[in-house]
Amino acid sequence: MNIAIVGVGLIGGSIGIRLKETNFCDKIIGVEKNESNQRKALELGLVDEILPLEEALKRCKIIVLTVPVDAILKLLPNILDQVTDQVVIDMGSTKTNILALIAEHPHRGRYVAAHPMAGTEYSGPEAAIPHLFKDKVMVYVEAFKSDEDAFELADALTDQLAMKTSFMNADEHDMHTAYVSHISHLTSFALALTVLEKEKSQGRIFELAGSGFQSTVRLAKSSPDMWTPIFKQNRSNVLEVLEEHINQLKDLYDKLESEDYDGLHKLIKRSNKIKRIIK
Amino acid sequence: MNIAIVGVGLIGGSIGIRLKETNFCDKIIGVEKNESNQRKALELGLVDEILPLEEALKRCKIIVLTVPVDAILKLLPNILDQVTDQVVIDMGSTKTNILALIAEHPHRGRYVAAHPMAGTEYSGPEAAIPHLFKDKVMVYVEAFKSDEDAFELADALTDQLAMKTSFMNADEHDMHTAYVSHISHLTSFALALTVLEKEKSQGRIFELAGSGFQSTVRLAKSSPDMWTPIFKQNRSNVLEVLEEHINQLKDLYDKLESEDYDGLHKLIKRSNKIKRIIK
Repeated sequence: MNIAIVGVGLIGGSIGIRLKETNFCDKIIGVEKNESNQRKALELGLVDEILPLEEALKRCKIIVLTVPVDAILKLLPNILDQVTDQVVIDMGSTKTNILALIAEHPHRGRYVAAHPMAGTEYSGPEAAIPHLFKDKVMVYVEAFKSDEDAFELADALTDQLAMKTSFMNADEHDMHTAYVSHISHLTSFALALTVLEKEKSQGRIFELAGSGFQSTVRLAKSSPDMWTPIFKQNRSNVLEVLEEHINQLKDLYDKLESEDYDGLHKLIKRSNKIKRIIK
Repeated sequence: MNIAIVGVGLIGGSIGIRLKETNFCDKIIGVEKNESNQRKALELGLVDEILPLEEALKRCKIIVLTVPVDAILKLLPNILDQVTDQVVIDMGSTKTNILALIAEHPHRGRYVAAHPMAGTEYSGPEAAIPHLFKDKVMVYVEAFKSDEDAFELADALTDQLAMKTSFMNADEHDMHTAYVSHISHLTSFALALTVLEKEKSQGRIFELAGSGFQSTVRLAKSSPDMWTPIFKQNRSNVLEVLEEHINQLKDLYDKLESEDYDGLHKLIKRSNKIKRIIK
């Protein structure tokens, strides 16, 4: 069995390198339009060969889409047109628009919507690592609409990645990821912009940056090519959480501005409840 | 030589445990009003004994203040009244108000204002670790106002902690820490509050939380008893950076709201310049 990975960056490359470790398939075929990334993917051994999409579709049983979500929207209907008994899995970070787009497709059953809750702030083939997915959660969205054999093959791949699984509907998935993933990126982008701006007048501003700053700002290294489409595809949920987050910051601002230190202490103490969630 | 550590929590305890490793002094005396923390500090071997402040001042050459900044403001003038040839070092996170308070004190020269840019989101004696300070920066503020021998003894202690050093004036210090430390805590507190609120209606919201979320929210575990006084003492700088940060978030919001995806892409790309600063 051959597997096609469409988009050999952080996610696609990490799947490739891991599947080569586990000998899950005969060949891993990369589909990648960027020539420099093609070369790197081969050099790093993330894939066995690079082929055009049409060719890869003919030779592979599983097609994994790991391109940005706007590219998935463009590619998926066309790919589904061409599949017969293959399985197409997308690994995009938003799901509502993608699922709506192919809801009535005659080959809908061959498609499995999945989202691995794993990643780093780095991108491109050089960022690929074999254990990116280990013990992380693979979310299946509307899995009941996939053919049984298609889902089982997708889930066998998830097993190879040593992941846990979770099931959700599309609305739930897109709202939850807005709250526990997309907003974290927005706060990091905004924090980086805030301090970079200040650096212009205060040259030494980063001298005192320690691990706390690093922790809250590291996601600001994330790729705009990946994240702009995510925010676009999940626009209403992202606007909701962003508005709510700005309101929480304003609340902290108001407490400090009015010197209501008891109120400020209470808000901080309430936020400490996050201890229950993260170790 | 004996050293007194006033406030045996994360910072004080970590200094104690490290100085015991390096045999820098004969005895480490803890001054700690909380009885449970007294017991833990002795059990964990962070200090050799616990004494009342007055007693510790008589028996120690170096007095290190590692209580919250509001407590430093209360204690410091009184401690300086009593010192003769001792050295008093405070490790508080804000400096302007503390330095203004003792600027004219007859024993000003015996005092060294220092701020170790190190910490974790945990607090209390159990949080103490011997290598908390290794390779981090100790900032000295208005060091030229300390007696030469007092500064040298403080710097010898910094050496024991294996830290690098940096020199600043108080205004600069308080503004810089607002931008690269205090704001990171505020964004984490606000992010925790945002998602904890949403959990009330969406029970499974934390199921998909991954390493990115964890990274941006972990500081929300920080102690309100430590942070409320920091925000209070650094109020104007913190309000400035908070306002600027809210504006950056609003800018991202407006770009998304008006579907200006080129503009959004540009902002994210600009924030990527943080790569230059953090590895």
